Amino acid sequence: MAAAFKTVAVVGKSDAASLPIILEELCAMLRGRGLAVVMDPATARAARNPPNHVVEMEALPARADLAIIVGGDGTLIASARLMAEHGVPLVGVNLGRLGFLTDVPAEGAAAAIAAILDGEYLPEQRMILSGSVRRGERTMFSALAMNDVVVSRGAVGSMIELAVTVDGEFIYTLRADGLIVASPTGTTAYALSAGGPILHPALSAIALVPISPHTLSNRPVAIRSNSKVEITLVRGEGARANFDVQVYQELEAGDVVCVASAAKPVTLLHPRGYRYFSMLRQKLRWTERTA
Amino acid sequence: MAAAFKTVAVVGKSDAASLPIILEELCAMLRGRGLAVVMDPATARAARNPPNHVVEMEALPARADLAIIVGGDGTLIASARLMAEHGVPLVGVNLGRLGFLTDVPAEGAAAAIAAILDGEYLPEQRMILSGSVRRGERTMFSALAMNDVVVSRGAVGSMIELAVTVDGEFIYTLRADGLIVASPTGTTAYALSAGGPILHPALSAIALVPISPHTLSNRPVAIRSNSKVEITLVRGEGARANFDVQVYQELEAGDVVCVASAAKPVTLLHPRGYRYFSMLRQKLRWTERTA
Amino acid sequence: MAAAFKTVAVVGKSDAASLPIILEELCAMLRGRGLAVVMDPATARAARNPPNHVVEMEALPARADLAIIVGGDGTLIASARLMAEHGVPLVGVNLGRLGFLTDVPAEGAAAAIAAILDGEYLPEQRMILSGSVRRGERTMFSALAMNDVVVSRGAVGSMIELAVTVDGEFIYTLRADGLIVASPTGTTAYALSAGGPILHPALSAIALVPISPHTLSNRPVAIRSNSKVEITLVRGEGARANFDVQVYQELEAGDVVCVASAAKPVTLLHPRGYRYFSMLRQKLRWTERTA
Amino acid sequence: MAAAFKTVAVVGKSDAASLPIILEELCAMLRGRGLAVVMDPATARAARNPPNHVVEMEALPARADLAIIVGGDGTLIASARLMAEHGVPLVGVNLGRLGFLTDVPAEGAAAAIAAILDGEYLPEQRMILSGSVRRGERTMFSALAMNDVVVSRGAVGSMIELAVTVDGEFIYTLRADGLIVASPTGTTAYALSAGGPILHPALSAIALVPISPHTLSNRPVAIRSNSKVEITLVRGEGARANFDVQVYQELEAGDVVCVASAAKPVTLLHPRGYRYFSMLRQKLRWTERTA
Repeated sequence: MAAAFKTVAVVGKSDAASLPIILEELCAMLRGRGLAVVMDPATARAARNPPNHVVEMEALPARADLAIIVGGDGTLIASARLMAEHGVPLVGVNLGRLGFLTDVPAEGAAAAIAAILDGEYLPEQRMILSGSVRRGERTMFSALAMNDVVVSRGAVGSMIELAVTVDGEFIYTLRADGLIVASPTGTTAYALSAGGPILHPALSAIALVPISPHTLSNRPVAIRSNSKVEITLVRGEGARANFDVQVYQELEAGDVVCVASAAKPVTLLHPRGYRYFSMLRQKLRWTERTA
Repeated sequence: MAAAFKTVAVVGKSDAASLPIILEELCAMLRGRGLAVVMDPATARAARNPPNHVVEMEALPARADLAIIVGGDGTLIASARLMAEHGVPLVGVNLGRLGFLTDVPAEGAAAAIAAILDGEYLPEQRMILSGSVRRGERTMFSALAMNDVVVSRGAVGSMIELAVTVDGEFIYTLRADGLIVASPTGTTAYALSAGGPILHPALSAIALVPISPHTLSNRPVAIRSNSKVEITLVRGEGARANFDVQVYQELEAGDVVCVASAAKPVTLLHPRGYRYFSMLRQKLRWTERTA
Repeated sequence: MAAAFKTVAVVGKSDAASLPIILEELCAMLRGRGLAVVMDPATARAARNPPNHVVEMEALPARADLAIIVGGDGTLIASARLMAEHGVPLVGVNLGRLGFLTDVPAEGAAAAIAAILDGEYLPEQRMILSGSVRRGERTMFSALAMNDVVVSRGAVGSMIELAVTVDGEFIYTLRADGLIVASPTGTTAYALSAGGPILHPALSAIALVPISPHTLSNRPVAIRSNSKVEITLVRGEGARANFDVQVYQELEAGDVVCVASAAKPVTLLHPRGYRYFSMLRQKLRWTERTA
Repeated sequence: MAAAFKTVAVVGKSDAASLPIILEELCAMLRGRGLAVVMDPATARAARNPPNHVVEMEALPARADLAIIVGGDGTLIASARLMAEHGVPLVGVNLGRLGFLTDVPAEGAAAAIAAILDGEYLPEQRMILSGSVRRGERTMFSALAMNDVVVSRGAVGSMIELAVTVDGEFIYTLRADGLIVASPTGTTAYALSAGGPILHPALSAIALVPISPHTLSNRPVAIRSNSKVEITLVRGEGARANFDVQVYQELEAGDVVCVASAAKPVTLLHPRGYRYFSMLRQKLRWTERTA
């Protein structure tokens, strides 16, 4: 299985101070194994030694059979949307504290990645979301989201009003700051802060989590991942559809935001020994007690 | 499909004042269609005219190919545990306000049931839970639960401490009033009051909902329904394992409560026009606004 | 006590279809009692008969010794900020469903107000908030708020970071969608949707309610109303300070939002028989049961 | 001010392994300062050297003008109920991790207490609750509570039903696992786990926090501390009134649990430098981030 990796894309959080050092260690290791390294321009600029190839971010997935992401969960999520369609697996190196997704510590990253290249990894498929914004007959915008598609109010004004259906069945009219449509991966991100449940990544589900709903009984709902969610903006000046809180589309009243699971999942490669709940315990301090 | 029903079990909430009238209407209709009626002794005592057969509650499922439950959700749940193993479908007539599960109103129940007997129904399978309590090598207790298996503290004292695993993987040590393991059906019952999410019945999932957890980040978690949950009572005098808050087993420190989905689901028959979210809106007053 | 009212300001929600009818009934009653009626221009335009005086909204409080607000809670709140400084008591007529604050139904409003003019009322003082935005040495903005001062993120981007002190004592660095500083009156508005507690209006307290906080243990905190809250925007492009979700100031990193209770409270006049918890039960459907 | 302390009561968590060492250090210091030491029998048994006096726990408050509590928050709370009526101030030494109330670390406790005896302390008054259970004309039970009076369901069965009034005004009929009536001190204990707000100790308030309420809009309410709360058990076999989760009275349907603030507060002595929010940050990990 290790034989599969010949060209490795390396994408870094380009404004991170420690990025050049990690890149140097990683590249030395990768080349020592005879692998080609390809980077996006921003990462290449941070690298002390040039990679084998520099291509635009959008072109990276077509050129690589493995992507090493160096940064935080946000960096990985941004890349994952690109890599998913080409089926390029990702491994995340965390420059700060351990992430929910980036589980290789910067300290000792080269050795940890080498082990993964040797086939010592746990592959895990994560469902991602595919969303679009429809205005009348036109599709205004479409994008993938690893964590969530969020329809939320603008800076001005108060609550927005949304009408929500699942597979054509009306759920509710929601008056709230917004609605988070989250993948299981996204349930430990924004949706968790908004009071949503944690959905195990192996659960084929989508969570609908209202943000500060006016009606107190509008609780989070989880539905099957093969469902199609449609959210119509009934009222709400300045409302937006945010994808992973990274890209967005402004909305007008009547716009419909459609969300479903994407055709292809993202594949994450974890170091051996990775366990989902162990990571959660550490991130959410479940093993710690407050008294 | 209507041809399938020849013997109909009728089980009523025996202390309900309006039960005799509904029973009379239902039995007249059933006999008019040439169907045999079988009742448990308590329901038979409430009936003005004797049914064709009276058998103990436990023996009902073997004798019937349809069960009409007259009462509330609690009545249906108690029967469902029995009916599940024999695959007898249930239809619920509600004597009070509409239930989450009992969706035929008492008013006009005979006509509504007649339509169901004519094949005018929506069948729905609901996963149920199978739980047991293990003390050392011995299985002390085992039962089915349509809503939930709840490990909770006794009347005396404060929090209990539980160690929870899923498929052998350690999740957390929980200090709380208890832990609710809920089927999707159960997520609109006790688990909802405890802050859990609503899981759509078509989602093959189990919810783990802590009750008043000491650690504020111990949030509800949903896992796949083919998972096996094991809950070890670490500490907690007087703790119990409750099944549907109807039957229970007292626990000692070291006891392990095992929960998984049962081999056979319950089949509910809904009147045509039943829609899950419509029922939720009505029960949770989602269509209503507080201001 | 009834003798106190000689000039009555009438302020209406000018886009409400039923406003002209109510105004006609109210004005006939007021004039029949020999009272002068003063209106703001927008309300006067909606009135079928001209009032005694028409003055700008800002000048109304100096001209009246009672204000009748015809609309919803939002209309009353907007007026209350103006009336508070002149000590003009308010009575609210609700054009739609009963409000938390506007407790005279439109149906029969003239008779109900007449009773109040006869002295048949329960006066209630409601603490209001006074807030300002400081940038370096300069005060950029200051306003009163009956419900809440909300520091929240802009439309773009994710969480903002706030450093919060109370009377100079550091509370926490908050990463969240925002922070609601609410008066007791405001605790049944936006703060309630965000998960805050209900503070009885007679309690001299201020609630600090985080909106979707990143750290799950950042729970709502209530402090004494004579406390001074300072919120520094550490990070967050596009963040704003909103007063009653009606007026706002855009914020830059480093800006400090100061909130304390205002020197003068608002006085509400309720019809005899008004009871706070009775109103809450009706608004929050406490008397109703979900099953 | 330091002159005030002549006889010091020392009360320890008698089953704590490290108690004898701390007692030895404390007693040596106290005697070196010419102070008399008085202990309850259980603490005296754990002490290596006998104190000046040994008296029953109940008699301690009358004999001492300062109480040093060595244990955890639970130990301090149990003593505080006794000390409050005699106005004996308490200082808490924590044998484990820092408590919300016991803020002198075991390590270096003798020196820290010496500083307090020198007058280097911050006194703080904490309101405590006074509760009783009335059955018809009879008062069955009465007790103080530093944290909370909790009316909760028994081990068997499901929700209980309570009718709650404040100063005679009806609030709601609550169907829930129970209701917590908490002092500000108690809002960081059980009430916090049940979803209640944090009330600053200087706020003269009482929190009413429902435990797993059936009606989702039954949110926590805070009222003035001079209010009188009455809770009638409408239904609920095996229900109890718990005081600080340490003493309790079994309830029958119709019993009324009355709660108000006690006539005398508890006085805590904190080391110089104590700050309430600093302690909260540490206990609730507010300074830490989850990602």
